[in-house]
Amino acid sequence: MSLYDAMFAQYGVKIAQVLVTKPDFYNEETRNNLFCTLSELISLNIVPIINTNDAVSPPMFIRDDEPAGGARRGIPIKDNDSLSAMLAAEVQADLLILMSDVDGIYNKPPWEDGAKLMHTYSSDDSNSIEFGKKSKVGTGGMDSKVKAATWALDRGVSVVICNGMQEKAIKTIIGGRKVGTFFTEATEHSTNAVPVEVMAENARTGSRQMQALTPAQRASAVNTLADLLVSREKFILEANAKDLAEAQKNGLAKPLLSRLSLNAAKLKNLAIGLKQIAEDSHKNVGRVLRRTRLADGLELKQVTVPIGVLLVIFESRPDSLPQVAALAMASGNGLLLKGGKEAAHSNRALMDLVTEALATVGAEHAVSLVSTREEISDLLSMEKHIDLIIPRGSSELVRSIQEQSLHIPVLGHAEGVCHVYIDRDADLRKALHIARDAKCDYPAACNAMETLLIHEDLMSGDIFTDVCNMLKREGVKINAGPRLNQQLTFGPPAAKSLRHEYGALECCIEIVPSLEEAINHIHTYGSGHTDVIVTENDAAAKHFLGSVDSACVFHNASSRFADGFRFGLGAEVGISTARIHARGPVGVEGLLTTKWILNGQDHAAADFAEGGERTWLHESLPLDD
Amino acid sequence: MSLYDAMFAQYGVKIAQVLVTKPDFYNEETRNNLFCTLSELISLNIVPIINTNDAVSPPMFIRDDEPAGGARRGIPIKDNDSLSAMLAAEVQADLLILMSDVDGIYNKPPWEDGAKLMHTYSSDDSNSIEFGKKSKVGTGGMDSKVKAATWALDRGVSVVICNGMQEKAIKTIIGGRKVGTFFTEATEHSTNAVPVEVMAENARTGSRQMQALTPAQRASAVNTLADLLVSREKFILEANAKDLAEAQKNGLAKPLLSRLSLNAAKLKNLAIGLKQIAEDSHKNVGRVLRRTRLADGLELKQVTVPIGVLLVIFESRPDSLPQVAALAMASGNGLLLKGGKEAAHSNRALMDLVTEALATVGAEHAVSLVSTREEISDLLSMEKHIDLIIPRGSSELVRSIQEQSLHIPVLGHAEGVCHVYIDRDADLRKALHIARDAKCDYPAACNAMETLLIHEDLMSGDIFTDVCNMLKREGVKINAGPRLNQQLTFGPPAAKSLRHEYGALECCIEIVPSLEEAINHIHTYGSGHTDVIVTENDAAAKHFLGSVDSACVFHNASSRFADGFRFGLGAEVGISTARIHARGPVGVEGLLTTKWILNGQDHAAADFAEGGERTWLHESLPLDD
Repeated sequence: MSLYDAMFAQYGVKIAQVLVTKPDFYNEETRNNLFCTLSELISLNIVPIINTNDAVSPPMFIRDDEPAGGARRGIPIKDNDSLSAMLAAEVQADLLILMSDVDGIYNKPPWEDGAKLMHTYSSDDSNSIEFGKKSKVGTGGMDSKVKAATWALDRGVSVVICNGMQEKAIKTIIGGRKVGTFFTEATEHSTNAVPVEVMAENARTGSRQMQALTPAQRASAVNTLADLLVSREKFILEANAKDLAEAQKNGLAKPLLSRLSLNAAKLKNLAIGLKQIAEDSHKNVGRVLRRTRLADGLELKQVTVPIGVLLVIFESRPDSLPQVAALAMASGNGLLLKGGKEAAHSNRALMDLVTEALATVGAEHAVSLVSTREEISDLLSMEKHIDLIIPRGSSELVRSIQEQSLHIPVLGHAEGVCHVYIDRDADLRKALHIARDAKCDYPAACNAMETLLIHEDLMSGDIFTDVCNMLKREGVKINAGPRLNQQLTFGPPAAKSLRHEYGALECCIEIVPSLEEAINHIHTYGSGHTDVIVTENDAAAKHFLGSVDSACVFHNASSRFADGFRFGLGAEVGISTARIHARGPVGVEGLLTTKWILNGQDHAAADFAEGGERTWLHESLPLDD
Repeated sequence: MSLYDAMFAQYGVKIAQVLVTKPDFYNEETRNNLFCTLSELISLNIVPIINTNDAVSPPMFIRDDEPAGGARRGIPIKDNDSLSAMLAAEVQADLLILMSDVDGIYNKPPWEDGAKLMHTYSSDDSNSIEFGKKSKVGTGGMDSKVKAATWALDRGVSVVICNGMQEKAIKTIIGGRKVGTFFTEATEHSTNAVPVEVMAENARTGSRQMQALTPAQRASAVNTLADLLVSREKFILEANAKDLAEAQKNGLAKPLLSRLSLNAAKLKNLAIGLKQIAEDSHKNVGRVLRRTRLADGLELKQVTVPIGVLLVIFESRPDSLPQVAALAMASGNGLLLKGGKEAAHSNRALMDLVTEALATVGAEHAVSLVSTREEISDLLSMEKHIDLIIPRGSSELVRSIQEQSLHIPVLGHAEGVCHVYIDRDADLRKALHIARDAKCDYPAACNAMETLLIHEDLMSGDIFTDVCNMLKREGVKINAGPRLNQQLTFGPPAAKSLRHEYGALECCIEIVPSLEEAINHIHTYGSGHTDVIVTENDAAAKHFLGSVDSACVFHNASSRFADGFRFGLGAEVGISTARIHARGPVGVEGLLTTKWILNGQDHAAADFAEGGERTWLHESLPLDD
């Protein structure tokens, strides 16, 4: 108790010890007293610490199945689990938390193949689980916890059995997140909802079904979806209207409202985009990338296949849903979609159409919309089920997903600190044209210029002044890098950081003494997204393009070209600044991996040993059979 | 004190409070008493908790710069930091740990660009750091900690300043791992050693230097290394002899000794392999994968470039070092190598040759050997410096690295549960030949068969008996899957799991009722590495190859062909069961990524808006200029 006292005192919480004995529960007066004591303590914000008064009472063994209504009711208080269950029922607790040293209840003994932690448990589940004496689930301790939990559940108390060693378990449970096993009466909702793990398994199976289809069948499913977007316009817009009404009620900001809103024209454009995806899809899956004759009669092919199961997390814009679904369908991938709460109705309506389109090729479970209630952190821990995560939205969203995802790769870029370098040999007109476009065409885009680097020699000529005046005329707020700051007596304010994404009509200007220093600056402060040189000197351009280690390097062209559509990749899956898997603007190819197919005629590796009967050929073959 | 008492009691540790006042330090007798009290407490395993006796003494302000030798010595005990420094000096402590709420000492104010946590601090560093009144590093608290730490350091006490909120900070420090900032007298060793962060930055720079070279220059560096392996044979074997001697003294197991040992023949073979890598390297970096004319005068190229900085962790086999270094050099990547302690001398000798070879092209810092003292976990947290980790060694090593690495991708496979499925229409001779090779050619390899699936219809014919007899003859221990177990009265023992990598002359045999069930079995229990069908039925083979979702799928060929050399990929970087970046056997291509190069002539994105002066072409161009 002194330890409890000390620990709670650290949080300024007072505690009181309450010791109970068997007769306390069966004598009406003591039961009442106990209830009043506990209520009074709680109303005084004192946490009662309850234990059996071992010193004065032996352990009890009363059976639950004895005639009800008599004086003897309850379950044996042979351990703290049953004591807590009785108390919880007595005080009509909202929730009872039983802490153990395992993570919760498993459907099978945890060490067996296919054993899974059950996130919820209702009385219906008791049959489907291997419990009881024959089972090895929990030895004693867990049995008694499950018994206590179901007993309390029968009396209207929800129970969580969880691992007490898990950090912040209580806080997490109270926050409503999935921890351990939640014992709750099955409501209509919970029985209907498909658990997200099942969705993911369905997506895996669905991906394999899609992969087995012909490209024409996959394209047909995408075309069906495109047609549905137009023919079911009314259905979609009605759902969208509900979201808009709620959003207006909640006072959503104007730009967010316009992102949320759908209309006939948007749907028609979406359908056109989808038809394009369908048309482009014929060469996605099953494309042969390499053919080699390893030996006589032994031929190897490397072919493209879908990655597997994607998780796409997108923000308010509901147009993303059919687009992403179409990309997944075209590439044979399974997909879990997690949309924003504001677009819940629109997303559900659009998802219905996706399912309808998938059903025409028998793969209706390949794409699922994850409930808005699912925690992103729970999804990010499903590395066995999800192969790639694609966040589509603000850079805060991307950054947060990248930081949180520990074992699933994330395709995207958290930062776009793009540079335009105006070389000593730049053409003034081009410098003005490109710098204006790079900063002002769409300042919020990730491929907009954030820092303008100018060669020192240009300080004395027209270019520096003209470029600055142009930017000022366009309403661009200028910040000065340290070198520029030193050179100007009354210059713009000093930039707080040289590695900043303004994402608005604002930028940093810095002077560099040489091409080499421009490259160093970009390597030191850039984010490896897109960097541009403006010069008429081909040798300088070549050196810049070869040396700058970014996903995109441009000569005499605006950084704004770094984009999947503009690159001719078709629909854009995202832009990646990673160096693994996909880099720069990513089209549907970013959703593919490869597999190796080897056709032999009774070939064994040992036959190739020295002096063996076979020899290696390793002969490259043309890609077409 | 009651809280301290309660907390320490949890670990069964006794504590004692010791309160000190100013005069205690200046009076010889009380100083002696204090020293004796503390020594006695420690010898009794009692932890002294020391504080200023605020109740009886005002805070002291004694200056350190007053004449030494007098009664007044020490630093002001105005806070617990200086108190601890004085006490540490007094008792000649080995180590003083000062806990703060920041992670340690930074070279600049932590919020500035380029601020880095200093892992070590010696008196030489005091000038290179922005400290003192002008600096914003730490407000008061940190200043006083640094002052106390340097004061104690001057008196021979090493000090660590770290974040007290970090989990298990004390244990980690005592374990010798890098936490916070370590104040220590610079020894010859520590000044010579290059910190691993610097090595990683050098590797990044080195990668960029390598990238700027011509393919011929990169190949020449690899060839130089190959020549050095032969011409410096004596130097290498002398170093290797030291490792072998130590290993024998430590009683290293025979197979490990043979892996550790080098000889003239091994070196010659290594050199031949390196020459091959050099020859293959001409088409690695700068290969054009795609060329598109986006618009008139606007041409896009996608070219291969190195990934950047690799970390390769390898076990005892020192041959890995020149091989991996050559692959990195050939692909223009920077490289950090972390080898096993047993091969420390060999690795250092081989590393000297790598540096010598790199120096011939001016990139001597592109490859570094990380000290065996560096903790792997520290390396795994360097996601800003390291782009890809390749563990080369046991599957335990790979699994542990994959689990530990949270933000750096790991290329490799932790499991190889490969299947051979003998279809109903299999040829008996081929089934025997392929099953024997798959299991017995090299049972420890990841591409060896672990489970043999046999079609149910074959149970009554010869194949089942013949295959089992063949395996028995080869000394393979057989375990039965549940279906086989049910069918045989006196069968082999039941397999404990259907998802087990035996890695030895042992396997599981299971019966499947159909091709479809074989595929399901592989999807349920396989690891997506390599799976084989043996059949004369082409339709069945086609269905199997198309449906099994593994990195490698083979028809009538042994699983042992899943190997970079056998696939004709040249040197093998590893085998990947990941679905991202690289899948299956990975050659040097797995060390490359791409970059997009756009050449324009004053192109701005806004010019392409509707009604603008430019239009998209998106015309595919041939890959050669």
